[in-house]
Parts: sequence; C-alpha cells; structure tokens
Amino acid sequence: MTLTPQPLHKFTFGLWTVGNPGRDPFGEPTRKPLEPVYTVQKLAELGAYGVNFHDNDLVPAGASASERDRIVREFKAALAEHGLVVPMATTNLFADPVFKDGAFTSADARVRAYALQKTMAALDLGAELGAETYVFWGGREGAEVDAGGKLLEGLERFRDCLNFLAEYSGSQGYGFRFALEPKPNEPRGDLYLPTVGSALGFIATLDQPERFGVNPEFAHETMAGLSFPHALAQALDAGKLFHVDLNDQKPGRFDQDLRFGAENLKGAFFTVKLLEDSEYSGPRHFDAHALRTEDEAGVWAFAAGCMKTYLILKEKVRQFHEDAEIQGLIASYKVQDERLETMSRSFSKENAEALRSTSFDLDALRQRGPGLEQLDQLTVELLLGVR
Amino acid sequence: MTLTPQPLHKFTFGLWTVGNPGRDPFGEPTRKPLEPVYTVQKLAELGAYGVNFHDNDLVPAGASASERDRIVREFKAALAEHGLVVPMATTNLFADPVFKDGAFTSADARVRAYALQKTMAALDLGAELGAETYVFWGGREGAEVDAGGKLLEGLERFRDCLNFLAEYSGSQGYGFRFALEPKPNEPRGDLYLPTVGSALGFIATLDQPERFGVNPEFAHETMAGLSFPHALAQALDAGKLFHVDLNDQKPGRFDQDLRFGAENLKGAFFTVKLLEDSEYSGPRHFDAHALRTEDEAGVWAFAAGCMKTYLILKEKVRQFHEDAEIQGLIASYKVQDERLETMSRSFSKENAEALRSTSFDLDALRQRGPGLEQLDQLTVELLLGVR
Amino acid sequence: MTLTPQPLHKFTFGLWTVGNPGRDPFGEPTRKPLEPVYTVQKLAELGAYGVNFHDNDLVPAGASASERDRIVREFKAALAEHGLVVPMATTNLFADPVFKDGAFTSADARVRAYALQKTMAALDLGAELGAETYVFWGGREGAEVDAGGKLLEGLERFRDCLNFLAEYSGSQGYGFRFALEPKPNEPRGDLYLPTVGSALGFIATLDQPERFGVNPEFAHETMAGLSFPHALAQALDAGKLFHVDLNDQKPGRFDQDLRFGAENLKGAFFTVKLLEDSEYSGPRHFDAHALRTEDEAGVWAFAAGCMKTYLILKEKVRQFHEDAEIQGLIASYKVQDERLETMSRSFSKENAEALRSTSFDLDALRQRGPGLEQLDQLTVELLLGVR
Amino acid sequence: MTLTPQPLHKFTFGLWTVGNPGRDPFGEPTRKPLEPVYTVQKLAELGAYGVNFHDNDLVPAGASASERDRIVREFKAALAEHGLVVPMATTNLFADPVFKDGAFTSADARVRAYALQKTMAALDLGAELGAETYVFWGGREGAEVDAGGKLLEGLERFRDCLNFLAEYSGSQGYGFRFALEPKPNEPRGDLYLPTVGSALGFIATLDQPERFGVNPEFAHETMAGLSFPHALAQALDAGKLFHVDLNDQKPGRFDQDLRFGAENLKGAFFTVKLLEDSEYSGPRHFDAHALRTEDEAGVWAFAAGCMKTYLILKEKVRQFHEDAEIQGLIASYKVQDERLETMSRSFSKENAEALRSTSFDLDALRQRGPGLEQLDQLTVELLLGVR
Repeated sequence: MTLTPQPLHKFTFGLWTVGNPGRDPFGEPTRKPLEPVYTVQKLAELGAYGVNFHDNDLVPAGASASERDRIVREFKAALAEHGLVVPMATTNLFADPVFKDGAFTSADARVRAYALQKTMAALDLGAELGAETYVFWGGREGAEVDAGGKLLEGLERFRDCLNFLAEYSGSQGYGFRFALEPKPNEPRGDLYLPTVGSALGFIATLDQPERFGVNPEFAHETMAGLSFPHALAQALDAGKLFHVDLNDQKPGRFDQDLRFGAENLKGAFFTVKLLEDSEYSGPRHFDAHALRTEDEAGVWAFAAGCMKTYLILKEKVRQFHEDAEIQGLIASYKVQDERLETMSRSFSKENAEALRSTSFDLDALRQRGPGLEQLDQLTVELLLGVR
Repeated sequence: MTLTPQPLHKFTFGLWTVGNPGRDPFGEPTRKPLEPVYTVQKLAELGAYGVNFHDNDLVPAGASASERDRIVREFKAALAEHGLVVPMATTNLFADPVFKDGAFTSADARVRAYALQKTMAALDLGAELGAETYVFWGGREGAEVDAGGKLLEGLERFRDCLNFLAEYSGSQGYGFRFALEPKPNEPRGDLYLPTVGSALGFIATLDQPERFGVNPEFAHETMAGLSFPHALAQALDAGKLFHVDLNDQKPGRFDQDLRFGAENLKGAFFTVKLLEDSEYSGPRHFDAHALRTEDEAGVWAFAAGCMKTYLILKEKVRQFHEDAEIQGLIASYKVQDERLETMSRSFSKENAEALRSTSFDLDALRQRGPGLEQLDQLTVELLLGVR
Repeated sequence: MTLTPQPLHKFTFGLWTVGNPGRDPFGEPTRKPLEPVYTVQKLAELGAYGVNFHDNDLVPAGASASERDRIVREFKAALAEHGLVVPMATTNLFADPVFKDGAFTSADARVRAYALQKTMAALDLGAELGAETYVFWGGREGAEVDAGGKLLEGLERFRDCLNFLAEYSGSQGYGFRFALEPKPNEPRGDLYLPTVGSALGFIATLDQPERFGVNPEFAHETMAGLSFPHALAQALDAGKLFHVDLNDQKPGRFDQDLRFGAENLKGAFFTVKLLEDSEYSGPRHFDAHALRTEDEAGVWAFAAGCMKTYLILKEKVRQFHEDAEIQGLIASYKVQDERLETMSRSFSKENAEALRSTSFDLDALRQRGPGLEQLDQLTVELLLGVR
Repeated sequence: MTLTPQPLHKFTFGLWTVGNPGRDPFGEPTRKPLEPVYTVQKLAELGAYGVNFHDNDLVPAGASASERDRIVREFKAALAEHGLVVPMATTNLFADPVFKDGAFTSADARVRAYALQKTMAALDLGAELGAETYVFWGGREGAEVDAGGKLLEGLERFRDCLNFLAEYSGSQGYGFRFALEPKPNEPRGDLYLPTVGSALGFIATLDQPERFGVNPEFAHETMAGLSFPHALAQALDAGKLFHVDLNDQKPGRFDQDLRFGAENLKGAFFTVKLLEDSEYSGPRHFDAHALRTEDEAGVWAFAAGCMKTYLILKEKVRQFHEDAEIQGLIASYKVQDERLETMSRSFSKENAEALRSTSFDLDALRQRGPGLEQLDQLTVELLLGVR
C-alpha cells in the first residue's frame, strides 16, 4: 500500500486553494497570500501533478502587458523546474464588484460584454500555459430578487456567452474542453445551474454540446443535501465528466471547502471508487482550503491530507474488489434472468407481447431479502480497517 | 378579480391527493379512502378541470379483467357526467413491496420485467381514458446502500426501460408525451434523478429525447433547498415543461405536500408568474394533500384553497405587470447597449476583436445600484395587498 | 393604517447592518463604510428609535483613549440631536484573527483572558451610552475539529466567562440584562449554543440565570430549518425574551441576513403577532443588511422596507384578531371541558383516580376535523390582502 | 480487541426497532411484525443487555386486563429466561388518530386528558417491568398551522402534563427519571422542543427540574443539520444525559433511523468517545431499524451491525487516547497560562483590575497555528485503520 502522492496520481490544487488567506464574512484574513512560484515548489515537494488558477490568481487585475508577461514567464519556469503542469484554467468573474449582480447573466449589457472580454483573455492565458480544460463557475450568476425578470433571460444570456466562447476557443485553435461547475447557492441566494444535473440539462441546449461537460464538486452537491457519488455517476453515465473538484462539506450550510475526506468518509470512498473504476483519467483536483484557524504549516498539512486520504481510499477500493464476502453479497444481490432481460432490454412487438404474458411470483419477490444491511456493514468495517 | 375556479383554469387533482387517507410513518390513517366516482363529482363542483391517477388509484391491484372494465366504465361515465377530463396518467411502482428496492432500476431482473409489464398496462389504461401526458415518478428508484453497485447500472436500466416504453407507446399509437418527475429523496435515501436538472440531463441520453420532458414539483425541489421558480424556468427554457405539480413545502425535511401557497408565498407568486407569462398551456396539477389532522371537510377546504390561492396570485401577476413603479424599476434595472449587445450575442472574429478592444468604465459599473431592494420591497407590498 | 415608522415603534438597527459594505467570501466590498454620526442622522430621518453597535463599530480597534473619547462624545451629540437611543451594545469577538479559534472558548488561555478584557471595556462603553441590554454572540465559539477536546471544555469556559462578566457588570452598577444570541453555524463549522433552546438550556447552568435571557434571530433559527415563531414562543414562555433580531433567510444555507419579510411572509407574520400580543416591550432590532448588489440608496430602501413590512404585518395582526370568521374557527378548534381540565391541570391523587376512571369516546375524537386547512387558508388570504 | 457484544456493554433495542415492519408513506409493510417474546430471545442471542417498549409495542391497544396480564407475564418470563432487562419504557402517543393534532398539547381538552390517562397506565406497566427511565417523545406535539393559537399554549399544556406525571410517578413510588426526547419535525411540520437544547431549556421551567433530563437521538439532531456530539456534550455538561438514542441519518431529510455508524463515521466516533469518556453509565440504545428493503435476516444483520460498530469505535477511542502523536498535538493545542487563568476563572475586583491592565502580544496570538488540520487528519487515519 503506497500512500505517497506522486504525479502519476494526477493530484492538482488551485493557486486559490492553498493560497486561501482565511478571510470570511465575519473576519479578516488570518494568513498571508502565497506567491504562485513558491506554491508551485511546495506542491511539487508534496507530490502533486499540477496546479490550476483563475486569471487573477496569477496575474493581478490591472497588470500591464509587460508585468503579465514577466509573471507568466516566471511561472512557466517554475512549472518546468518542478515538473508541474497546468491542466485547467478558469476566470475570476466574481470578486470584482463589477460582477456583483452577475457576469454573463448581468442585467447590464456592459457587464456582460466585459465578462466576455475578460474570459477571452483568460482563455488566451490558459492556452499559453497548456491548460486543456476550461472551467466555468458562474459564481455571481444567480439572484436574490426574482422580480428583476431574469428567470428566463438569465439562462438565455448564459447560453449566448457559452456559445460565443466555445466558438472563440475553436477559432483560436485552443481545443479547450469546457466544464460547467454547478453550485446551489452562495455567494448568490440562488445560483443558476444549481446542480450537476442542471448543468447537464443546460448543455443539451448549447450549440456545441459535445464541447461541454461538467466539473462536479463534492461540497457543492452536498450543500443541497444531494449525494455526490450519485451526481458523479450521472456525469460519467452521460460521458460528461470533464473535471472533478474534491473536497468535503456538511450539508445544508455555508460553503466549507473542507479537506477531502474530512467529513463524509463513505461519500469520499464511493467517489474514489467511481473515479478509479471508470475510464476517467483526468486530474483529481482538490478545490478546498485549510481551516481559517491554521497557519502555513496547517496549509501544507491540509494539502498532504487531501492526497493521503485519497490514496488510502483508493487502496480500500482495491480491497473492496478483492473481498470475497463482499463480492459474494453483491453477486447474490443482482438477480439475473437471461430470458427476461432479453425481453426487457429493447422494445419489439414480440418482446412486449412476451412480457405482457409473463407471470411473476410476486410473493417471492416481495419476501426476498437483498442483504443490503450486511453488505453496508461490511463496507463500513472495511472503511474502519477491521476487515 | 374572479377567484372562482373554472375548467378553463385547467386545475387538476390526482385521485391520490384528495383521497390521501392521512397515514404516515408514525400513525394510522385518519380518513377513509374516497371513491373515485365521488371524487370526480366533488372536484367538478369545486371547479376543477381534470383528474389524474396512478393505475391502482382507479383499478385495485389484482382486479380481474371484468372488474377493471366495470370500474373504468363507471369512471368514464362520471367524467362525462361532470365534465372532467383525465389529462395525465401514471403507474404506481412504489407501494407494493415487490418494488422495495426499485422498479426499473431493481437489481433483480424479474422486478424490472414486472415493472415494464405493469407500466404497459397502465399506459393502456391511461390511453383508454384519454390521457395525453404520462408521468414517470421513480419513487423507489434510488438507494441507501451504494455498495450494491447500482450507481451506474441504475441509470442504464432506467434508460433502457424509458426507451422501451416510449417505443411501446409509439407502437400502440398512443402519442403520449412523457414527463419525468424528479425528487431528491424519500422514500429512498437518495433517489436517482434528484432534481429537475438531473431529469433534463438524463433526457439528453435517451433514444427519443423529443418525447420526454419534465414534471417539476414545487415540494420536491424545495426539499433540496432549491428554488422552484428557477427549476421551472430551466424546464421552460429547454422547452421541456410537459406537466407541473403544484404544492408547498418547508425546505430540508420530509415530503409535506402542503396546500399550494401554504408556506412560500413569494415562491408561489413567481411560479404562477412563470406559468402565466409563458406559453405553458397544460394542466395546473395540485399534487398535494390535506393535513393529516383534517376530516373530509378539511380535504375540500384544502382543494378549494389550492385553486383560490392560484387565482389570487394570477391576479397579482396581472397587477405586477400593470404597476408603473415596478415596471419602471425593472426597466432601469436592465441596461441595454445595442452596440455591445450586437458584439456579444454571437461569435465572429470581428465581434471578438471589437469586444477585445472595448474599454469599460469599470468604476461606474461597480458603483451602480440596481435598485433590487426597492423592487423586492414593492413586490412584497403587492403580495401583501397594500399597493 | 399607519405605515410610517416612528420612535414609539421601537425599531432599531446596528451600525454594522446599514453600514455593511457588501464584502463576502467571494468578493470585495461593493459599498463604502458609513460614518456612525451620518448613520444616526439617516436612521432618525427614517423613523428609527435607536441604534446599536459592537465596540469596534464605533471605536476602531487600537484607538487611543482620547480618540475614543472624542468619538463617543460626537456620537452622543448626534444621538441627542436626532433623538435616537442606544438600547443594546455588544462586543466584536470575531473579526480579529486573534479570535480565529474562539474567544471565551479558545484553547489558548491568553485569548480567553484578552476576550474578557475586551468585553469589560465594551461593557463600559455600552454603559456610557446608556445601553440596557448586552448581547453575547459567540461568533467564533465553535469548532470544525472535535478532536481538539473542547466538546465539554468549551462549555465550561463559556460559562466561566459569562459568570465573570455578569459579576463585573453588577460590581460596576451597570445593571445590564444579558442576551445570548444563538446560531447554528457560520463562521464556524458548528457553533456552541446553536439554537434558542440551547441558549435557554445553558442559562440554567449559570450562576445568575436571572440576569440572562436570549436574543433570538430569525435568520439563525431558519438556517437550521427551525421555526422562528416556535423558538420565539419558547423564549417568551420562559420569560427570557430580552432582545430580538429580525431579518429573513432561506433555510439550509449561508447566513443571508435578508430584509425583514423578504422571504418568509408567514413566518414574519407570526413573529410580529407574538411580539405584539405578548408583553415584550423591547426594541425590534433589524439585524440584516442590504443585498451586496446595492448602492447606498438601496441601503436606505432596505432599512425603510424592514420597518414598513413590520408595520404592515402589525396591521394584519390587528385584522386577524378582528376577523370574525377566523376567530370563530379558532374558538371551535379549541375544545374545552371544564371537568377534564380541572382533573388534568395539576396532580392530586383524586385527580389521577378520576382521570383513570374516565371513559373517552375515542372514535369521536379520531373523526373530529379541527378545521386547520380552512383556518390556514383564511390566514393566507388575509396576508395576501384579499379579506 | 473484543468486538462481541455482551450485556456489560449495555446495548439495548426497542421492540419497535427490530420489529419495524418497513411501512413508509409510499408503501406497504415489507416484513411481518415480530413477537415480543421471540425478539427477546433473538436480542439475547446477539448479546444485547435490554429491551425497551412503548406500551402498545407490548400490550395491544384495547387489550383486556387479563390479556394484558398474560402478555406481561410471558414477557417477564422471557426476559428472565434470556437474561434481558427493561431499562426504559415509554408511551405511544402518536399512532392512534386520536392524537393526530397532539396529545399533551392537543387543542382538545378531552385528548389531553386521555393522553394523561394512557401515560399513567404506561408508567404502571413500565414500573411493573422494572424500567428506571421513562422517555417522553412528543411525536404529535407540534403544528403545521400556527394560526390555531398554540404557539404559547402548547408549551403551557406540555408543562402541565409533565408536572402532573412527575408527581404521579412520585406518588406511586416509581422513582422514574424522565427523559425528554427532542426532534425538529416529522411527523408534524414543526415539533415543539425541536432540539436537545430546547428540551434542556424547557426543563428549567418545570416544577421538579431535577427529575427531568434528555434522551438525545443522533438522527433527530442531524435532521436539523446540528452536530450530535455537540448536543450530547451540552446534555452531559448540564448533568442531564438520562438516556441516549443511537442511530444514523443524512441531514436535512426525512427521519431515516439508519444503522448506527451507517452514514457519519466521524460523528459516531465522537459520540462513542463522549459516552465512554464521561460518567454516563446508562444504556446504549439503538433507536433505529433495518432498511425497508430487508427481510428478517437483514434485521438481525442490522442489529448486530449497530453493536459491532459501537465496539469498533470504542476500541478506536482507546487507541486515540494512547496515540502519542495525537495526544501531543492536543497538548500543544491547549495553551495554558496559570496567571491568566487564575485571573479569568472567577470574578473579583482584583482579578478584573489585573485583567484590565494586562498587555497581550496580539500579533503572536493571531499568527499561532493550532495544528487542527493535522490533528483532524490523524483522527481520520485512525478511523480508517491506517495508524
């Protein structure tokens, strides 16, 4: 059992995650910002694969062209020196008060245009640094006041902007895959595209749906009390898992961005299981931050903890597959019947007729025990390390 | 202001709604079941347009063919006598213990086959009674134990069954439009297709997506703390609002199915506003039930209340549109700029270049007040009847 | 119906409420801070009764003694000029990173001592400005990590500090009444004393319970999905309603501090009804802030809206009491039986024996309809202004 | 490490827990009821200590005196034969429609009187079977409609009944300790006494508060998104932990009553830690039930799983105390300062003066890292069995 993170594990962090200064609505920052170049070095030491950023995480708003170029040059040098990549990039469309009532969905045409302009520049920056995935998190795309009339218009505008940017990316030859990141609320009262499902549904209305997928985040689905593994499974089922944000969260409260595995070990286990069992080969991105109580040492303990817990759970996934008792319970849980499955799998008049005339022993089906309590108990014991 | 319900308002109820006997996990029924024929008569008296049912609401499980035919004949006669229609039908795939671990997504091939068989019969029944919309609510399609291995298989099986049934409907010439009804949890720990968005996303993976839409329910989105008007807007935006279930609910708790408008007046107002302002012409279905405390008189007070509150809110929608101060605030909230909008609306190299070279007065945009507090306050005053 | 706020209505605001600059975890401030003296003038113009503050809302941290005295002198002059009072004061024990892991419940003895020192000074300041109520909101008293060992120690330390400060207040002759303000979470993962009930329970363990009551906040109970009117009722029932914080909130999410009545009109109505029907004569304090989207005009619209909605609802309370149909339904809902009530009200062997030998017509009790759907519908119609 | 349950571990179950037939609002029972005598035998085989019941779990409503006596005699014989005790008893005041709008808090004086009569009889039954703790769960004490006027009256009536029954118990020489069991909602929209804190606060208003404590339930606090370990700690701190209900639950949804440890392993760990580290010597009662999917074998797997997981976690508590690295982190987390602690612990004019004149190195306190991320990570690793 190797629990030492290595680049092959594809663990990534955002500059904004380990660099989070611990500010919150009720208090001032508790930590100093971290320099991007220093962050690259530290993440490499810890065994990470890559680092992601919003445009302004790397290049401060208002930087001159030469400042920008110097920053990018130094950052690239650091990446090269430490062997890290930039698999994903994104735009900060939420911190500046200009976006206080939305960026792509603002009621003000000037803000929408500025958001497009800023995102084009961020796509350029991301492409320059080799990012292959572009994440859209509409942090201010939402409302507290529905009387403003954006319930339908907001979605139209969001779509127009996404269509525009997908074409822009194509026209520049960037080849980005775009991943929509849903969130139910915070910082807006209600965010548009609140869940992974909403994003999947919205993609079906875009001009080039094949270029769009989702970036599900553990904490975001959990805030709405939804199961993250279930949401992840729907994204995988739809062939739309383009990126993933791992962290943790207590349901029904403010966005906590806790260390991966800090709260919901079972949910974390099934998350790792889906990622490892599926064809997903992308980054395992930890979109989380150290508790506001912590100093810099706490930040690195946090980052190391995210990765180590993932590796522990990955090992438990292997053990789960090799556990004969568990696999036996799963096998007996799934009752196969080739004749019935042939009839049911796809429609034909013959199949429908055959199904219609089949008799079922309903009492036997009602009384059958699927053994799920026992299976769940063994899973818990496996997680607790006593199997 | 007419507050008397009439068939033209398209208010519908399910047999299971007014007929709910008030049983809950902690207590026995408090009311006797209502006869379907009697229910038709009472709903007609109250001004309803139609009545919906699950197969077994009308025809008890295990009824003989001749019993079924007699029941259907008498029910049709009652509909004709009282001028009610059956716009929607559905199948009960949740009450019988045979479905305790799922119907279409059961791990047992026999249960899945039986669920198909039962639904084909229910489609036949619905068609016979003239229903045009068929609702799929997967009440048992979900899990408490993810170790069973259905995270991905469940979705595949669900899809196979929906594809099968859509073809069956076509082959019979029924012409049903199918509406998926999402719900986050209860009776299962986590239901598949938990939100309106999930259902929209899932439809995109079906063989005949054009035949499928959604049946959003106020209470179901609210259980997950999501905004029902926002979900409704996404369904409308996608052209997928095939049916709607109106009721009320406190967030983050058991499924209450409260009287429409009983809890969240603002949410109810924006719901009515979306339905009345949009092209939606289908039934306004109240999928709710009287409180368990009530007797039959309370049931009819509940049903009348649902409709009356809808009509009050519909009148307030009219007033909202005619309120000059409110409309003035909305107009000033939406800042138009033809030049920028032309550049932003659709991509071209020229537009992108023009956008890139535009300068924005960001400070002015940051400082601009959108007037949303005032707009929201006026909306509240309108709701409270003091404008 | 007078909807113009006047001092006799006892509406108060905190300096931190109208002065909230619109900063949140994802964005920079959108508004400039307001000067305390200017705030006093504006609140007086709007009809407020008083203004409250945390020590550092008025006197910046680190101010010299002479600066402090000047600030206080000017603030007092403004209060006198505009006829406002300071009914309540409190201490900011959350913004400074020194309190990042708690103030009274910090694991660090130095932080606890400093919190006491700071609170003593704030009590002095509050007394100097005539405040009669002192609110304790333990904004950082909580934890994300229970392994630290504070589950029990935290409560002990909290109690020690409250006992200390109550004695300090007495020794200085201040005569403060102390009101504990509960909140379930945010900014900490879990706050100690999460609900009004928790605070009431904790008071029973203090040395001088009679000096302590609660300051229930609408948004805080609502965050946990609890009914604010129910919590308010328990505080009144216990004789412990020492102060009240009015605002609004969607359940199960980040602390929104919405305009009073902005979200839950029914909850707001029953809140006003309890306050107006009971003996509570204290301030109606709006602990809320304008949406982050707003400019200063939006701030005053917000403040005016809080007060106006309260007055509208107060008028509806009057109407509720005078509505014969509503009062008739309530009267028939409450079934009195003098003989049984005499037996039940207080224990005696005779009463117990009499009760034991009483026969009840259980079927009649089971079938009786209490008329609650109709009563609730009439209440909704009253709220909507159509009665 | 012994993971075999034995009576010394004081594990108890209710007849209604293992006997739960799997009925829910959407479906019929999936299991047959279990005979009490058989349940006693099975629980003894599994290593339980005791069995609890509501009056009607043992004696059906309407049983004649001789039937009752026969049932009790046979049940006692089974207890004696299998070595089980009955540590707790309670009354079913929720299943019969007579209680549909409350028992002790009904608006109908006849219902209140009948609830008292039924509870006196249940106290007699509990005493006859040797129960020492009596639990009050007010399953129907709450409301959906606050217009009925019970917000304050409900609490008065609840108090009157509890005072009455405490005196009745004393007068009969029963010596019961009464434990109030809070729950936020379900089956009522809002239950009175929604949280452990509410119950503690209410006890302070009773005539004989010393006879009353609480029966916190893991699932019930969790439904409101509150931390169960925090609530348990407050009960212990107040000396009021008279009983405890162990199970599991996802926050913000219907009452799931999951197997202990099935969902929240960290919460379960800190629960066991508090119980084992404190002076609590009462039963560890599992108020849960097998999933509705299960047959009888699943029921016993469920019951065995509850106990085994408790014992695994108890072993981990021991390991936590013996883990030098963890204990070292805790020790360095807690900064002691004898001089400051002496000043702060209790008020005197001298202490206040000394505190006032103390200088603090605030910058050092702000920068200090408490090491909580590392401590939490080690706790997670301990739980996962890799330490």
